[in-house]
Amino acid sequence: MARRILGIDPGTGICGFGVVDFVKHKQPHMVTAGVVTTPAHTPLADRLLDIYESITQIIEETHPDEVSIEKLYFNQNITTGITVAEARGVVILVARQHELPIYEYTPLQIKQTLTGYGRAKKKDMQEAVRQYLNMREIVKPDDAADALAAAITHALMTRAAYQSA
Amino acid sequence: MARRILGIDPGTGICGFGVVDFVKHKQPHMVTAGVVTTPAHTPLADRLLDIYESITQIIEETHPDEVSIEKLYFNQNITTGITVAEARGVVILVARQHELPIYEYTPLQIKQTLTGYGRAKKKDMQEAVRQYLNMREIVKPDDAADALAAAITHALMTRAAYQSA
Repeated sequence: MARRILGIDPGTGICGFGVVDFVKHKQPHMVTAGVVTTPAHTPLADRLLDIYESITQIIEETHPDEVSIEKLYFNQNITTGITVAEARGVVILVARQHELPIYEYTPLQIKQTLTGYGRAKKKDMQEAVRQYLNMREIVKPDDAADALAAAITHALMTRAAYQSA
Repeated sequence: MARRILGIDPGTGICGFGVVDFVKHKQPHMVTAGVVTTPAHTPLADRLLDIYESITQIIEETHPDEVSIEKLYFNQNITTGITVAEARGVVILVARQHELPIYEYTPLQIKQTLTGYGRAKKKDMQEAVRQYLNMREIVKPDDAADALAAAITHALMTRAAYQSA
């Protein structure tokens, strides 16, 4: 059974995305990854429209089965948290408009799942993503790698359910 | 010069809206007001889709010139703040898709503008909205009155600019 998962690392300035194919007994395969960025001082409304249109396009081009999105945790900077939540609202809307199931994971869950260590450093996470997808080099930029990490986390967290299916 | 302003009090469980017409030398007039609500335990994605579709419909039926939306302030409950921000992201997106200018006011600015007192109580605010719109009774539910307050605030805050235009 094959699953294509779209991972999202939400943000209004930079929103990371990564699409991965998971096929039983096969090496997971990165379909695409990247970031939606808007220049500094772009009005929030323009940024949200950009995210809406870009994520719509990615979904319509790659046809994922599920969406995995990084969830906010409440120790981080609140002002940043608010803008991330605004972007998250738009991404979740787009996924829902395409009738895709949406799964949310905290940064702690993602780190724990990929490295076995909830306080893993960014470099260790990027290396785990690289190894997991059997790539030569780590994925750049950081937010694209974070989005792939969200997709991989969802695949690993729900593996048992799929294998028994 | 006439202006029709859509005020929004964002939230994922209850999202208030209120449309007001402001015509120079005339009594401001409420066009419509209400709330978009979803039952408890409705998934976030369904709520955001509901908000997206409802606000789209309100804009397409009432054709406002501008949108005034309550801005988050950072003393409030963070978990609530996150869900409000997710709804705000969707509302701002809809306004932008209809090419409407969006203005944001904090609860403090709204209270200050309507009552002259930044710590005004809910009842005082509702009474100010009632008087300002020359209505017999206060508007219910609360979130609809809050949305009207946002619309009135924007009209009052930008009155000078319009009068000199």
